[in-house]
Amino acid sequence: MDGPALSPAAGLLAQVSQYIDRQQEAFVQTLREWVAVESDSVQPVPRLRREVTRMMELAAEHLRRLGAGVELVDVGTQQLPGGQSLPLPPIILAALGTDPEKATVCFYGHLDVQPASREDGWLTAPYSLTEVDGKLYGRGATDNKGPVLAWLNAVSAFGALGQDLPVNVKVILEGMEEAGSVGLEDVVRRERHGFFASVDYIVVSDNLWLSRTKPALTYGTRGNSYFTVEVKCRDQDFHSGTFGGILHEPMADLVALLGSLVDPSGRILVPGIYSHVAPPTEEERRLDAAVELDLGEFCRSSGVARLLFRSKEDVLLHLWRRPALSIHGVQGAFHEPGAKTVIPGRVTGKFSIRLVPNMDAAVVEKQVRQYLESVFSQRNSPNQLTVSMVLGLQPWVADIQDGQYLAARRAIRTVFGTEPDMTRDGSTIPIAKTFQDLLQKSVMMLPLGAVDDGEHSQTEKINRRNYIEGSKLFAAFFLELAKLHADRGRPVSPAQGRTP
Amino acid sequence: MDGPALSPAAGLLAQVSQYIDRQQEAFVQTLREWVAVESDSVQPVPRLRREVTRMMELAAEHLRRLGAGVELVDVGTQQLPGGQSLPLPPIILAALGTDPEKATVCFYGHLDVQPASREDGWLTAPYSLTEVDGKLYGRGATDNKGPVLAWLNAVSAFGALGQDLPVNVKVILEGMEEAGSVGLEDVVRRERHGFFASVDYIVVSDNLWLSRTKPALTYGTRGNSYFTVEVKCRDQDFHSGTFGGILHEPMADLVALLGSLVDPSGRILVPGIYSHVAPPTEEERRLDAAVELDLGEFCRSSGVARLLFRSKEDVLLHLWRRPALSIHGVQGAFHEPGAKTVIPGRVTGKFSIRLVPNMDAAVVEKQVRQYLESVFSQRNSPNQLTVSMVLGLQPWVADIQDGQYLAARRAIRTVFGTEPDMTRDGSTIPIAKTFQDLLQKSVMMLPLGAVDDGEHSQTEKINRRNYIEGSKLFAAFFLELAKLHADRGRPVSPAQGRTP
Repeated sequence: MDGPALSPAAGLLAQVSQYIDRQQEAFVQTLREWVAVESDSVQPVPRLRREVTRMMELAAEHLRRLGAGVELVDVGTQQLPGGQSLPLPPIILAALGTDPEKATVCFYGHLDVQPASREDGWLTAPYSLTEVDGKLYGRGATDNKGPVLAWLNAVSAFGALGQDLPVNVKVILEGMEEAGSVGLEDVVRRERHGFFASVDYIVVSDNLWLSRTKPALTYGTRGNSYFTVEVKCRDQDFHSGTFGGILHEPMADLVALLGSLVDPSGRILVPGIYSHVAPPTEEERRLDAAVELDLGEFCRSSGVARLLFRSKEDVLLHLWRRPALSIHGVQGAFHEPGAKTVIPGRVTGKFSIRLVPNMDAAVVEKQVRQYLESVFSQRNSPNQLTVSMVLGLQPWVADIQDGQYLAARRAIRTVFGTEPDMTRDGSTIPIAKTFQDLLQKSVMMLPLGAVDDGEHSQTEKINRRNYIEGSKLFAAFFLELAKLHADRGRPVSPAQGRTP
Repeated sequence: MDGPALSPAAGLLAQVSQYIDRQQEAFVQTLREWVAVESDSVQPVPRLRREVTRMMELAAEHLRRLGAGVELVDVGTQQLPGGQSLPLPPIILAALGTDPEKATVCFYGHLDVQPASREDGWLTAPYSLTEVDGKLYGRGATDNKGPVLAWLNAVSAFGALGQDLPVNVKVILEGMEEAGSVGLEDVVRRERHGFFASVDYIVVSDNLWLSRTKPALTYGTRGNSYFTVEVKCRDQDFHSGTFGGILHEPMADLVALLGSLVDPSGRILVPGIYSHVAPPTEEERRLDAAVELDLGEFCRSSGVARLLFRSKEDVLLHLWRRPALSIHGVQGAFHEPGAKTVIPGRVTGKFSIRLVPNMDAAVVEKQVRQYLESVFSQRNSPNQLTVSMVLGLQPWVADIQDGQYLAARRAIRTVFGTEPDMTRDGSTIPIAKTFQDLLQKSVMMLPLGAVDDGEHSQTEKINRRNYIEGSKLFAAFFLELAKLHADRGRPVSPAQGRTP
């Protein structure tokens, strides 16, 4: 029987997909080797920092084996608050192909991870990739080592099949994302007319789908202003028997300060904090309404009994388009098991406010400091208050009319057989904003992980399906971008790109 | 020239004192060896628990070398909240002398310590005794290894001089005091008609003077009710980007709960908590007024800018005769350096209320639970709240007309040349209450440490003077008790005992 002939691109994609299926055990094994490196950039200790650097070297070697030109950019040292310093891991700049006829797409990823240990409640060893029911558990599996490898798997497939890459591929990988991307912005700025001069599109795959099964494309992220609030009586702790009842206790001050930040409905109590928040546009309301999100399923899969809001639209609004304040913890107080009778002498609360357009981190810093100082002054405490914004990362939003969004939607339809959810992300990937501001390039977020991947939590995983189909998706995206580039000159709109 | 002839007891005390002065380097060296053992009973981990047991064995060997009969009482295992169990260190019962003509005095002490590490801010290695300007820094130096050794030093002096002990001496030493004296009460109850049957007086030296230089005698302690309040959404943490803004965050609930406990003036907000507090008697007001306490000096030596109260009487009232609430910390939240963007899924706040006569821990438990449940219910949170009282230790107060208080006052006058402050202690030594209740014996607290010793804090120390003169004080106390015993039959009152 005669069927419709496959286009050359479709035929190549079929070959690439088969190759990726055949190679999947090897691809999982490489992910296992990467997860095994405890590349924790959050805890500023020399042993862990060395692991981050070792991870960067492993990735550089992997890229070289794929035929890439690789540069490890030294970005110097990190100054810590206590006066110490730590070396920063190098940043990887890699390139495959320089054909001026082809589009050039640059992938950003990070190879550092959040802290993880068995004592935190992991059911598996966090740095030993463990597969259960098609889920690959391990710190960094989804955030962000798995997606980085999926990109490299796609690249490798073309080479293994003896095919030229349909696009020029560049890769920028960092090792300090979880600690605020220290050193990265300087490199991007410096390479604006170098490494990035030929780049047409920038892709970031550092967030999650909204669903366990349905892919997404992401066109905006919240920013983050991270605060420490220190209350100090003295450097040493006190015995609560010897001093309890006559002291202005720092923990009482701190608890009152932290308790003044947000009400039980999640509303932030810092005066003026909502004054620059952009109200949602009609188009944004329309996009949100089209998103597939079953709140019941969302709660079940997250293990949450009840959310603050009951409609899909309200939940998306408060995740994507409204600021949110979270209290992360307290440093300097008693945090271990047992019953220590201590009055901590100096305690530091940590909280952050996620920022949305058109909030500005510098304005938020001022609002928060003034508010906390005013709350503190009402306590008549002789203790010393120090409020610091230790991270101030701006929100980002992209133009979804841009061509690479079209190419990605087509690739998703081809590989997953469905339209993607058009999403924003509540978390912060500052590099998207940096790329857009510094390079004036089109930036797109193309997530590979499912909603229940548990990034930053104790059961982080990536589904084998997401990892392997994600590798195919990147290959399909390369082919779609190449088509788009071949069509250059003709105007391209999402409507034209829609399949019949 | 003829001077007044020394009494035989005074002559013996002079010899003993000279011996102790000659031996002081050896005595400091033994303290160094004891401090070197990390006998931390607070953190329930096997390695540290083994160190506590090793400490008990060291002390038993020391007692045996002094000629004591020593029993190491096995008190079984400790059940931990998580279902695990740990062996309990043995309790030491030791005895020197059984002369029925002599008084029998029993010393209670503990050899376990609070946690300590360099990272907490110690300027010296906490388990390496370090002398600076006559101060012996090290964990346990004053709480309670130094005082235990001072007692043993006094005992050893009589033997070294070929003299009989003026009293029969018994010693009970435990290794779980900092963790609530697990297992001790059973031993005391069991030995009521055994080890303790012949005991006339019980001495505890586990608190501090009110001053850097002036000794004290202590006739009461506060109790302690230690609470954990857990708020749980789920066992895993959340990413604050992915969930921030739509969750009832456990830390927001917990901070509100902890913030509802005490106002900026130190007043506890739990309804009914003050209803059983005994108002101070006229005699208590008189004793407090006689205490030497320079609040300015107290603040300077404590490193505290300003206390909640401005008069000596108010400060003593709130340390000794009023309950106090201290917030110790939070378990399960982010407590490390750095900026982790986590929403903790399950957090446990820890606080305690010091109890005074006539409060009852069981009543306080009920009041606190009801109050926190009511505060929580107003937040409309779907999270799970669990309030537990993990320690409930009753307050204690003694009859200061008892003979051993007289003997101790005389001994203090002889060794230190001054009347002691008659004090209560704001902290909790539950064994005093246990001895009084179970054995119906006279209990006295005879502190050796100075006010600035920093027990439970990062710069714990004992002054060389306090350690060495304290050893002499115990020897003088033995001699005074012997005199008191020889006078038995004649009524003894503090007035008769006063020197001309």
